[in-house]
Amino acid sequence: MVTASTPAAGSAGRVETRHLDLPAPVRLDSGRELHPVRVAYETYGTLAPRRDNVILVCHALSGDAHAAGIAVDAPEAATRDGFGAADRDGGTGAALGWWDGMIGPGKAFDTDRYFVVATNLLGGCRGTTGPSSTDPATGRPYGPDFPVVTVADMVRTQRAFLDVLGIERLAAVAGGSLGGMQTLEWAVLYPDQVDSIVVIASTHALQPQGVAWNAIAREAIMRDPAWQGGHYYGTDRAPDAGMGVARMVGHITYLSAPALHDKFGRRLQFADDIRYTLTEPEFEVENYLRHQADSFVKRFDANTYLTMSRALTYFDLARQYGDGSLTKALDGVLARTLLITFGSDWLYPPATSQEIDAALRALGKPSELHLIDAPYGHDCFLLEERRQTPIVRRFLAGL
Amino acid sequence: MVTASTPAAGSAGRVETRHLDLPAPVRLDSGRELHPVRVAYETYGTLAPRRDNVILVCHALSGDAHAAGIAVDAPEAATRDGFGAADRDGGTGAALGWWDGMIGPGKAFDTDRYFVVATNLLGGCRGTTGPSSTDPATGRPYGPDFPVVTVADMVRTQRAFLDVLGIERLAAVAGGSLGGMQTLEWAVLYPDQVDSIVVIASTHALQPQGVAWNAIAREAIMRDPAWQGGHYYGTDRAPDAGMGVARMVGHITYLSAPALHDKFGRRLQFADDIRYTLTEPEFEVENYLRHQADSFVKRFDANTYLTMSRALTYFDLARQYGDGSLTKALDGVLARTLLITFGSDWLYPPATSQEIDAALRALGKPSELHLIDAPYGHDCFLLEERRQTPIVRRFLAGL
Repeated sequence: MVTASTPAAGSAGRVETRHLDLPAPVRLDSGRELHPVRVAYETYGTLAPRRDNVILVCHALSGDAHAAGIAVDAPEAATRDGFGAADRDGGTGAALGWWDGMIGPGKAFDTDRYFVVATNLLGGCRGTTGPSSTDPATGRPYGPDFPVVTVADMVRTQRAFLDVLGIERLAAVAGGSLGGMQTLEWAVLYPDQVDSIVVIASTHALQPQGVAWNAIAREAIMRDPAWQGGHYYGTDRAPDAGMGVARMVGHITYLSAPALHDKFGRRLQFADDIRYTLTEPEFEVENYLRHQADSFVKRFDANTYLTMSRALTYFDLARQYGDGSLTKALDGVLARTLLITFGSDWLYPPATSQEIDAALRALGKPSELHLIDAPYGHDCFLLEERRQTPIVRRFLAGL
Repeated sequence: MVTASTPAAGSAGRVETRHLDLPAPVRLDSGRELHPVRVAYETYGTLAPRRDNVILVCHALSGDAHAAGIAVDAPEAATRDGFGAADRDGGTGAALGWWDGMIGPGKAFDTDRYFVVATNLLGGCRGTTGPSSTDPATGRPYGPDFPVVTVADMVRTQRAFLDVLGIERLAAVAGGSLGGMQTLEWAVLYPDQVDSIVVIASTHALQPQGVAWNAIAREAIMRDPAWQGGHYYGTDRAPDAGMGVARMVGHITYLSAPALHDKFGRRLQFADDIRYTLTEPEFEVENYLRHQADSFVKRFDANTYLTMSRALTYFDLARQYGDGSLTKALDGVLARTLLITFGSDWLYPPATSQEIDAALRALGKPSELHLIDAPYGHDCFLLEERRQTPIVRRFLAGL
């Protein structure tokens, strides 16, 4: 429970996504350089005169810079669907930010105290340069010619962006899932610029089953003839069919089996009986999946999906920085570490967070791990604000 | 362990799939009638003069009548891949039967003693009438006009087939996964004709997550434009892309996360490093999935996949026969029941087998449940012969 001294939690208010062009090319792990790079971002709260109250919040696969508050052009107070939210965008212009429950006055990331910054990731499709952006070499969208980027590339882009804002140090970097990977990457790449990291429902390397699910999602997109090798921009076709399947796969992996049981069970779409049809939904969960797929393809770019999915499967701290040793990879970390993981999260199971915690402790570095028993699977990081909030507030108060 | 008195296990030998035309139409749950119906089948062992040694073995989603032995036209001794086998067909003409480890002289289903019969299911694509069969009304393949069938329809077809063979009673019905559903259906539909049932890695109703996975697999097929609403026969296109994705989804759900970890880990396809590619496999598990997809589409019909998947999601004993009560549904069962389930099987988790066992016991009916701790997930029913064999032999010896 939030302690009695906690102020009433409020909204970050109306916010607008802004854009900033980086002054220099971004050098990528692949050896390529990318220029120009534009970064979409939002901020919440007030930057302290000493610029020592900045928290960078990093989004997951299909998130964006709209992490909190209500979009300035949203027609009315937005609501949250509250289920199946792990890559909810919040960027529809009408919705609350994807982590609105965690960011705001009196919330876990308290905007009365901190200046919270969120950016859309490199490779994104919500304002930051990505595959759907114009390639200056051709005047057309990059499409499949957009470079394959890594989590480190995303973090270097965030670093360059913060340089422009005149922000050198971060009081904290925080994120869930792919956002947690960026958070870890920050602590490794820029150890003396990060005071603390909050890594939620994440890992130092996706487990093989997660690699497989991501591969299946990408195959579903790339096998759709409408993908056209990635050159679908400006044609009258887009790989909506494959994207829908990718979304369905993702969706089920974000939820736990018990959550699906509680939410849908085996309830039929038409209460009277089965209707002997292959093509129409018979069970409520079938209809729900189709709805999720249809709404996702309207708001997300397929090539960005491929890019994000590839980056998160590549991410592997031990391979990148430790010659196979996680301990070696984390040897230079200076940030205090908070890890939160969820017992029902089978996509990012607690074991790898425990490995991070153990490695940091073995190195004598400050780390704390909280295993929360909540039923929603990977989506917990978006849904379980109530139990995450006191943990995060207490951790940040120790800064 | 197999007891010392067990004879050395051997092969069912060279076998040939035969075909039989049913004399009368099959009446379906949907209200439709199907005629003609041809059934592909194999038999192993010798029918006793009193015809009291018959075991019917039922296959899973993508199996066929070739359950044991080596196909008569196989060029040489066949081998098994031994991994990712849950819907291995065994029907390529060169492979061992899909349950060869369980059926043969001295094996779990001992052909020195029993006359084992296996049929390809109604709706199949391996010799039994299904969507790729010729519709007598049009002279063309049924395609999407093939009726939507249920597990009960499959069992009624098996019943009609055995009538032609002059087999009234079954010493046992046995099967895993969808095969276990048929087995349960036999005990409910024809209680006085079944002495015992062996239900392995199965359920009285697929859990909602399993319903979702099956829906995603079917969506992947039906969203492939080459599916053409099911009318792809005789065109130069087939929904191989979507079938491949369906197969990948199925494949991962048949395996456990630890099995994937042990088999592939995060090993890269090219040992030196990542190659920054979206379109090519980077991890061994990605390459493996693609290979599985490619080989599956060569041997299996997409409309049959849809048909089988729909039947197994419909299956729900409590809904069909108990007004929502499993106990009521099982009230008429007379067969002795053996349930085998596997701790790592997250697609057909042990809980529902435990529910069957509890319901039968509450009704005072003989039931035994064995929970085997083996690591291969749902595929265990095909791979863990060593531990299943003594359980099944002991159970059958009690007949």
